[in-house]
Amino acid sequence: MTEPKPSNDPVEREEGLVFMPRFDQNGFITAVAVEHKTQQVLMVAYMNQEALDKTLSTGEAWYWSRSRKSLWHKGDTSGQIQTIHEMRVDCDQDCLLLFVSVGADGGCCHTGRQSCFYRVVTTETNGTTRLIKEDH
Amino acid sequence: MTEPKPSNDPVEREEGLVFMPRFDQNGFITAVAVEHKTQQVLMVAYMNQEALDKTLSTGEAWYWSRSRKSLWHKGDTSGQIQTIHEMRVDCDQDCLLLFVSVGADGGCCHTGRQSCFYRVVTTETNGTTRLIKEDH
Repeated sequence: MTEPKPSNDPVEREEGLVFMPRFDQNGFITAVAVEHKTQQVLMVAYMNQEALDKTLSTGEAWYWSRSRKSLWHKGDTSGQIQTIHEMRVDCDQDCLLLFVSVGADGGCCHTGRQSCFYRVVTTETNGTTRLIKEDH
Repeated sequence: MTEPKPSNDPVEREEGLVFMPRFDQNGFITAVAVEHKTQQVLMVAYMNQEALDKTLSTGEAWYWSRSRKSLWHKGDTSGQIQTIHEMRVDCDQDCLLLFVSVGADGGCCHTGRQSCFYRVVTTETNGTTRLIKEDH
């Protein structure tokens, strides 16, 4: 179980060894999922306290689906379960970094791609911005 | 200049080639910065429309500092300028992934570390959660 102890002391928050995840005003914390072997960034999603607790207790990634407004055990229907190899927290404890291995075909994105970041943002010479599809 | 054209059509948003960044209710979009050679995740921050426009026009990362409530040209005092090698957007266009090279000593975190994710979240056998300092 997590033991959130919000603190306004930046030294304690940044240099301490107490996990005090900082949820935003909606109760969410950002989580970045990275494939632990390839280092590929797969997706960015959000956890509430319950999703974080379930992630810690099960060793698999649980998120909060903002679109469906429900707890989301990633991969429970697709088989693309994300097994946590390592979880990290950033300096001000408002973001998590998850190193995961992925079940089934190893994919992550609901569009069928490995990663959700399958488009590059490019700026053309006339200044307009376009996307190019290119897996990474 | 970006040309945000918000669309509720998921096919257009997910499969289209028009960049239509989706800012949250506070006007922010999440951005993950990754070192382009090592693939190390350096930090997670936020951009508003102006920061995104400046990032695209200058080729360097600009963020919105939520704590200082001001536009933030990353590295303008430390020299740790983030030069953009590639920018990607995710499936629903509410998150950006920046592959960057970093000026000065190559660091990113205001605590002096290379990356902001210098602590691992661990769960002890009695269920309590602790942090361990360990660069990655």
